[in-house]
Amino acid sequence: MADPDHCPPLTRQSVREAHHRIHPYIYRTPVATCTTLDRLASTSQAERFGGDHDPGAHDLSDVSPYPDHEASDLRGSTAAPKIRLFFKCENQQRIGAFKARGAFHALGRLIEERGLEAVRRTGVVTHSSGNHAQALALAAKSFQIPAHIVMPTISTPSKIAGTRQQGARVIFSGSTSDEREAVVADVIRETGATLVPPYDHPDVILGQGTQALEFEEQVAAFLAHEAKHPPGQTLDAVIAPLGANDAERGLREADASPRCASLTIADGVRTPVGAIPWSVIADPEQMAGVYSVTEEQIKAALRLLMERAKLFVEPTAALGLAVVLYNEAFRREVQRRAGGKGWNVGVILSGGNTTMEALAKLFTKPEPSLERAGATLGTDGGRTAENVAG
Amino acid sequence: MADPDHCPPLTRQSVREAHHRIHPYIYRTPVATCTTLDRLASTSQAERFGGDHDPGAHDLSDVSPYPDHEASDLRGSTAAPKIRLFFKCENQQRIGAFKARGAFHALGRLIEERGLEAVRRTGVVTHSSGNHAQALALAAKSFQIPAHIVMPTISTPSKIAGTRQQGARVIFSGSTSDEREAVVADVIRETGATLVPPYDHPDVILGQGTQALEFEEQVAAFLAHEAKHPPGQTLDAVIAPLGANDAERGLREADASPRCASLTIADGVRTPVGAIPWSVIADPEQMAGVYSVTEEQIKAALRLLMERAKLFVEPTAALGLAVVLYNEAFRREVQRRAGGKGWNVGVILSGGNTTMEALAKLFTKPEPSLERAGATLGTDGGRTAENVAG
Repeated sequence: MADPDHCPPLTRQSVREAHHRIHPYIYRTPVATCTTLDRLASTSQAERFGGDHDPGAHDLSDVSPYPDHEASDLRGSTAAPKIRLFFKCENQQRIGAFKARGAFHALGRLIEERGLEAVRRTGVVTHSSGNHAQALALAAKSFQIPAHIVMPTISTPSKIAGTRQQGARVIFSGSTSDEREAVVADVIRETGATLVPPYDHPDVILGQGTQALEFEEQVAAFLAHEAKHPPGQTLDAVIAPLGANDAERGLREADASPRCASLTIADGVRTPVGAIPWSVIADPEQMAGVYSVTEEQIKAALRLLMERAKLFVEPTAALGLAVVLYNEAFRREVQRRAGGKGWNVGVILSGGNTTMEALAKLFTKPEPSLERAGATLGTDGGRTAENVAG
Repeated sequence: MADPDHCPPLTRQSVREAHHRIHPYIYRTPVATCTTLDRLASTSQAERFGGDHDPGAHDLSDVSPYPDHEASDLRGSTAAPKIRLFFKCENQQRIGAFKARGAFHALGRLIEERGLEAVRRTGVVTHSSGNHAQALALAAKSFQIPAHIVMPTISTPSKIAGTRQQGARVIFSGSTSDEREAVVADVIRETGATLVPPYDHPDVILGQGTQALEFEEQVAAFLAHEAKHPPGQTLDAVIAPLGANDAERGLREADASPRCASLTIADGVRTPVGAIPWSVIADPEQMAGVYSVTEEQIKAALRLLMERAKLFVEPTAALGLAVVLYNEAFRREVQRRAGGKGWNVGVILSGGNTTMEALAKLFTKPEPSLERAGATLGTDGGRTAENVAG
């Protein structure tokens, strides 16, 4: 990959150029809405779960993510921001996740830089146990470029099969980053392949950012159509998965390079936050806030996305809705800023790659752990998601 | 409800009028496609599962619904019809199922006939443990009409809650049809409410048929857009859930009024097929065939709809895809009729009302029963679905 210092800057214009580059290869995924979820988001947690009322009086069908003994603590959780939700369905993206965008963009840039024949001769390599593996395999296959994917031996068989199905060569490694990087180095020595990192590279980040550009356009078109007057209105905020609560903790502890070894059910954020996203998150001009949720809250949001909105998503995709519904600090902030007019809140549904068995395990287990995972809120869709979609 | 003899006839024109009547109250649900499922549908079962080949050679990610000892029997299952699938997403319909269409239409006709105030005075009643209960409750609420819903005491709590949430009065009964009908008779005596039956009434059937009309239009628009030439092409066949294999058995045994007490996981077809649908099914001019699938095949199709197409559906909605992928008689028939050109096959996804717990039970249980459930195939989208959507 190009030296990050020679990549385009992380601006709206660069995201537009990235979108122009990749749009023939990716889907313009749909945007979904759900009135039941709007109603829940616009009702205070005190009213939804707060113990001391007649439970028959208002059945909101929102299964509480709080144990009974915590429900009475929610009586103070009275924030009732007026929220209208829009969901960007990247679960419907190619390979089932937004990662297809970054992979196609990074590969496209590499081909522009070195020429297709040169890239075909040496191939590309990456390490990933998740969606980036399949994304790069698909992008490489589309250009008849050999792809070498280093995956931990403990990866789920369906993900290994999915990567091979795209025609990539899968090479196994241990699970630590040192072990993975050693195998990647071996592959590069052997084949001369170029590393396309799963995140924290400007070309990858610009590709992922293209979803926010589409999202803004689609919501603006939807609102203009609905209101039957010229466009202008769009999302007031976008919320996207970020990290396994190292981001919030890092900000609090002023730790510039947090590490995490989280076992959150949101497996898409089990990796540390990269240095580039980190530089954006730490800048209050670009990021309105970072908010955490519990495992039970992710599970409750996941259930609502499936049972109510009928959207089949992976647990990581439920992070944004979990923040909107259950993080009281977030809800107060939106109420304060949005006032009576309310806000259009965009939620990135990052992907839909999970299995029935994984879900069965999640919804039969008696009690998941209390691990926390985070999500980010940006006040400007385009600007934020350029930087946080990794 | 009107005497069935004084209802509009089951023609395309009547369905058009029904659509005009209900379209302000229902969603025009999206149509989805999925290239992975097209590929599976267009590959023979012998190649997908048929034992004697190198399993690594073609990984189609289609989890076999056959036990190992049956796999070798599939070597003769060589039908490889060229199929392009279109899914009508009634899981995204109001109350999460196509039943909203029939309820709004039947109620609309009742209001036209008797006047809104008269219907408001006496209300409506039905018996249903499933989607029709919520559908009628919603339609009644929309016109401020009292609704009485008779549900078996063993109904799942989420469905009872869902029905009450729409403002309906829920009255419990035993589970046999005699017990249910006795309670309905009591309600009618008490309140003068009008029965809106869940199926087998022309006004209900015409409402359900509107989905096929939209489906045809949407696919025609999609194909015209894709081919960049004027419209004309649309679906070659539509397949919809019908009954719990009493339909196929009934046809075979020339039994004009089959009864069933099936425990199929496709709970939406646990009711017997009505007399009106039956009169259509038995007419070869109107129906190309009735095909059955096993419980394991429904489960396999359900998994593919979720994991691959990312569509959250109830088990009944998987019947159509199960027939397309696993019923060899159906596949041979399509191959024979469609030839090299292939067919555009429409699959009705009837609804999305299930719970994470119900799915968890389905995908952790070692071996479900071998009960069989059926689905119907019509060669003309509009004509068929007018008659079979109940």
